[in-house]
Amino acid sequence: MAVYTDVVAEDLGAFLAGYDVGELLAYKGIAEGVENSNFLVHTSRGYFILTLYERRVAAKDLPFFLALMEHLHARGISCPQPVENRRGEVLGQIAGRPAAMITFLDGMWIRRPSPTHCAALGEALARLHLAGLDFERSRANTLSVSGWRPLYENCSARANEVQPDLKQFLAAELSHLEKAWPSNLPQGVIHADLFPDNVFFLGNKLSGLIDFYFACTDALAYDVAICLNAWCFETDHSYNVTKGRSLLQAYAQVRPLSDEERRALPLLARGAALRFLLTRLVDWFDVPPGALVRPKDPFEYYRKLRFHQAVKSVRDYGIEE
Amino acid sequence: MAVYTDVVAEDLGAFLAGYDVGELLAYKGIAEGVENSNFLVHTSRGYFILTLYERRVAAKDLPFFLALMEHLHARGISCPQPVENRRGEVLGQIAGRPAAMITFLDGMWIRRPSPTHCAALGEALARLHLAGLDFERSRANTLSVSGWRPLYENCSARANEVQPDLKQFLAAELSHLEKAWPSNLPQGVIHADLFPDNVFFLGNKLSGLIDFYFACTDALAYDVAICLNAWCFETDHSYNVTKGRSLLQAYAQVRPLSDEERRALPLLARGAALRFLLTRLVDWFDVPPGALVRPKDPFEYYRKLRFHQAVKSVRDYGIEE
Repeated sequence: MAVYTDVVAEDLGAFLAGYDVGELLAYKGIAEGVENSNFLVHTSRGYFILTLYERRVAAKDLPFFLALMEHLHARGISCPQPVENRRGEVLGQIAGRPAAMITFLDGMWIRRPSPTHCAALGEALARLHLAGLDFERSRANTLSVSGWRPLYENCSARANEVQPDLKQFLAAELSHLEKAWPSNLPQGVIHADLFPDNVFFLGNKLSGLIDFYFACTDALAYDVAICLNAWCFETDHSYNVTKGRSLLQAYAQVRPLSDEERRALPLLARGAALRFLLTRLVDWFDVPPGALVRPKDPFEYYRKLRFHQAVKSVRDYGIEE
Repeated sequence: MAVYTDVVAEDLGAFLAGYDVGELLAYKGIAEGVENSNFLVHTSRGYFILTLYERRVAAKDLPFFLALMEHLHARGISCPQPVENRRGEVLGQIAGRPAAMITFLDGMWIRRPSPTHCAALGEALARLHLAGLDFERSRANTLSVSGWRPLYENCSARANEVQPDLKQFLAAELSHLEKAWPSNLPQGVIHADLFPDNVFFLGNKLSGLIDFYFACTDALAYDVAICLNAWCFETDHSYNVTKGRSLLQAYAQVRPLSDEERRALPLLARGAALRFLLTRLVDWFDVPPGALVRPKDPFEYYRKLRFHQAVKSVRDYGIEE
């Protein structure tokens, strides 16, 4: 949570003059998003989010992300919608950063998701995958299997500081996944980061999906595997089979998983766990000592990965083979 | 700018049920305020600020601050207004912290105030002082002259790391101010922290004052001296006499300064500069190395203090003696 770039009122007023959004009345930096700076903007036409894209998001990918949000929104997916400026563009610039105005989405993210929330998530994920099928652009997943070895090399020298023998553990898992990773599963647009803090609810009703800045083209079932990791474990890192079943069954009611996808799910879940374990390790070692922003605990994903290694089939996740 | 305490949606929903503010629709932590955690809360009745008071604000002082905001708001000062809960109270509790819901105030703070902004500030400050005259509560200023020696003792051992001979400079200034500090000036409620980020504008029109959590009972002219320091110096730390004149003349048109107050102003300005120099020094040494939140530069107030030491009379600030 952070605001990396300050925006001066005078500059924001000039920026907004390029949009048909009325008069600027107020704006506040919001403590959300670890990659970008976000401001809640109040104008005489309503409330908007202004996002300034910081260095970790590649400028060349922004048209993909913004066009995807427009595409999904037009197909009935509740997600933020980029606002066009008077020239019909959705990408602008302020304070030296690429920036976009997006619509404000009501809803809260759930800190302790229930099986009901997991079912709602599963259904929304499947709808997202179907809505993305006719999206014309594509973007390679830089954080899929071919991206994991560079991450491993970045953090392996210090991995054993976190856990004895973690380096050896990671090396063996990485080799296994590089050999076994499936390449023939149904592809499409995946969100790739649909953690609870990117899913809004009003009561038990899912009200929207946000933060499409990891979205890419990859195996749809890999997105399911990411969500299993993110939604279906307890705080003690144990897998909750009721939540897993709720998520998977709700997903399958909208988009049935093929036999190949079901068979691949344990492997995909291992890969998803390794991906977040590696990026968290890199972030863990990247933080200056004494920093006030604490990176997320990598150990959580080590425990999840160990669970998936012991999984024999999707039955262990709570659904029929 | 920070959110120190996370608020869980379920807890916030339960908290808001105690208020007549409608249904919770969304909330965002906002990157504002260095003492408290602030959330922008959207309900079916509108937008509010939820403030959680963290350790640096003494719980025993909260009734003073909240009652003051109500008092000033009732007298036409544009400032946030605490919202009463169903029991008629303005102070509640959430996430283990004292907390208050306050009304959302439109406007932006000005990063580069002009003489016009300084005049608007001067007028608003005088109106605030007049509106506070019949406020019945009082609160001692813990950061006035008697509070400076403890601050000095906290930071003096390391002061010379910031500037050669700063320790000796501070010791001499503190001794002088302790002897010369006036005690017979008109007293009342002062804001005590009316920096540009606590003053909202819509265009050149002042739209509101916020952050009353340093407010206390003290010499009204001391508040003027704080504002002279905060509003009338350039980024190169030079005094801008046009801005000073604008502020002081606009103040005096609403509440004329007495002869004693005008004579005391250079001394009060030295005291105000020393107060912020000392608290910034304490914060400067209090931050862990590598921390991502950088404390404010103490050197700025050293330069301002040096300016005030050379001032012979209020003529040097831009108005007649």
